[in-house]
Amino acid sequence: MTVRPNVRAMSGYVPGEQLNDPEIVKLNTNENPYPPSPRVFEAVRAALTPNSLRKYPQPLGDTFRKAAGRVLNVDPDAILIGNGSDDILTILTRAFVPEGGLIASPTPSYILYKSLAEIQGARFAAVPLTADWQPDADRWPRDAHLSFVPNPNSPSGTVIAPAQLAALAGLVSPAPFVCDEAYADFADGNSLALLPSVPNLIVTRTMSKSYALAGIRFGFAVARPELVRELVKVKDSYNCDVLSLAAATAAIEDQDYFRDIRAKIRATRDRMTTDLTALGFEVTPSHANFVWCRRADRALKPIYEALKARKILVRYMSYAAGPVGHPEGSAYDGLRISVGTDTEIDQLCAALRTFL
Amino acid sequence: MTVRPNVRAMSGYVPGEQLNDPEIVKLNTNENPYPPSPRVFEAVRAALTPNSLRKYPQPLGDTFRKAAGRVLNVDPDAILIGNGSDDILTILTRAFVPEGGLIASPTPSYILYKSLAEIQGARFAAVPLTADWQPDADRWPRDAHLSFVPNPNSPSGTVIAPAQLAALAGLVSPAPFVCDEAYADFADGNSLALLPSVPNLIVTRTMSKSYALAGIRFGFAVARPELVRELVKVKDSYNCDVLSLAAATAAIEDQDYFRDIRAKIRATRDRMTTDLTALGFEVTPSHANFVWCRRADRALKPIYEALKARKILVRYMSYAAGPVGHPEGSAYDGLRISVGTDTEIDQLCAALRTFL
Repeated sequence: MTVRPNVRAMSGYVPGEQLNDPEIVKLNTNENPYPPSPRVFEAVRAALTPNSLRKYPQPLGDTFRKAAGRVLNVDPDAILIGNGSDDILTILTRAFVPEGGLIASPTPSYILYKSLAEIQGARFAAVPLTADWQPDADRWPRDAHLSFVPNPNSPSGTVIAPAQLAALAGLVSPAPFVCDEAYADFADGNSLALLPSVPNLIVTRTMSKSYALAGIRFGFAVARPELVRELVKVKDSYNCDVLSLAAATAAIEDQDYFRDIRAKIRATRDRMTTDLTALGFEVTPSHANFVWCRRADRALKPIYEALKARKILVRYMSYAAGPVGHPEGSAYDGLRISVGTDTEIDQLCAALRTFL
Repeated sequence: MTVRPNVRAMSGYVPGEQLNDPEIVKLNTNENPYPPSPRVFEAVRAALTPNSLRKYPQPLGDTFRKAAGRVLNVDPDAILIGNGSDDILTILTRAFVPEGGLIASPTPSYILYKSLAEIQGARFAAVPLTADWQPDADRWPRDAHLSFVPNPNSPSGTVIAPAQLAALAGLVSPAPFVCDEAYADFADGNSLALLPSVPNLIVTRTMSKSYALAGIRFGFAVARPELVRELVKVKDSYNCDVLSLAAATAAIEDQDYFRDIRAKIRATRDRMTTDLTALGFEVTPSHANFVWCRRADRALKPIYEALKARKILVRYMSYAAGPVGHPEGSAYDGLRISVGTDTEIDQLCAALRTFL
């Protein structure tokens, strides 16, 4: 069969391991260690009716858009719903990037952006981050059809200041500049306030992390309404199902619960940073729900393997190039460890102590 | 913002109207008039746990693939899961069609295929169906990168025989030939048995119609496992959520219930055909869960409007060209009416009698 050569050639994005063992301490895919809001369960049960299942759902998710608009203080028409933020990133790629076009993103960063370029038959520019994990404006391609900048970044958990983001967006304008805020709820700020003054800014969010809803696949973008109308043409007509819409709406409406679990995760993150530092890791100060750990005195992959043997799963990540300053040609790798419950982090540290 | 010109120029696929009025008799989007299997509700309630919501779902839907493989007698590795069959059609387009490539489908037929070509920046060949709704092999473009043939067809509800499908697939081989079987469960046969002998055949299915699950967005493709592995690279990593997967698996496992509601719909379809014919419509014999109605003695759009005023919603459809034999340049239109419950069809016919 005549699969496109760009697809045939790619290896495909590999998501984090999903092991079925319920005993495993799972700190590898940045899932929330706490359950979603109790209101999510109520809302899904209420939506579970014969009529809601047999009929098509709201194509644009108007109920969710109104709720999210109220909570985030944005125009509901500025919101595009997606089947996870992966769906949003796919829609953006298809809307803006022609075959042979150019997608730019920083590196080391989220590796899915490169896969999206490969699927689209587009070129990909990986712009090295500076030693302190900032985008290098001088090296950012002015001709990028689409720029993806995660903020906070993965795997580092570091943030870029709003003024810096606005400046970078200005460099590629009028081409779109996407600030992927999958982890922004764990940081001290976000870039929504930039939207009125930065016309080519698109902010993407997910309910997977801070709202503990990775299982239901729901994300969204915030952008100018006239742009959202164009993006609607590209998305599948009914890209979000009725139960996910109910769950996402209930979750975003329960801001008290959201703030509570976010505060717990931030507190554990601080403690975990201290504990891992005491164990000899260089821990990058994180604004996300994971921490990036490296150490000069021993190889990192065996630590991942030793933890896995003890039923603790973290993410070992390896990049072709590190941030500026990392010796060229030498592997840049590390462990990205999700913030779990306090008990899970105690188990992690106890396990590390047995072999470090 | 620099939206691609092909996207900017398109008007976008417009799905059937979704009115919120619960009193409306909704016969416009081919939803199933019966509830899904009771086992679907049990399965969703069982899947509604904190851990299943907060964690990522199965990327490939292995539990569903095993169940569907057993029911359909195909290799589970031959199944690709999708967020509705729209997602499957999108994945196929992205996998096979380069910018400037060619998508072919019959006309009058499902209008989404043209939108998919527009989004991809591809050309679209609409091949007129013959007067008896068969594809015209002589006019089918041999150089199509992707061919979409719905079977049964919409809006006609007509079918193409397996031998004819295999011949058409042979004409475009090795390029993929997609048999869109969204409505096949309402027909007497399907093309799954062709898969071993027609290597470029891809069969797509949806749970929206025959399994009464339009609300949960679930579809799938059946193709050779080596091809499914390529398509997996193109799909979003977690394109189906945990509750949809649970619902779809429970639905396909309950074949007794499935056969029961399918038999009811087929019986109502026959009765409805008789009644609408008695009311003066030319009704194309249907193998789907809708019937295609036209009449020479009066305009069809006012009938749609008069029904809508009486809170009965059917689909008025108009095409640039009709099947071969329909006078060129004259509008080809008709009413596509979904098979409802017997009571709903009684209401439809009673309403029609008041003004016809």
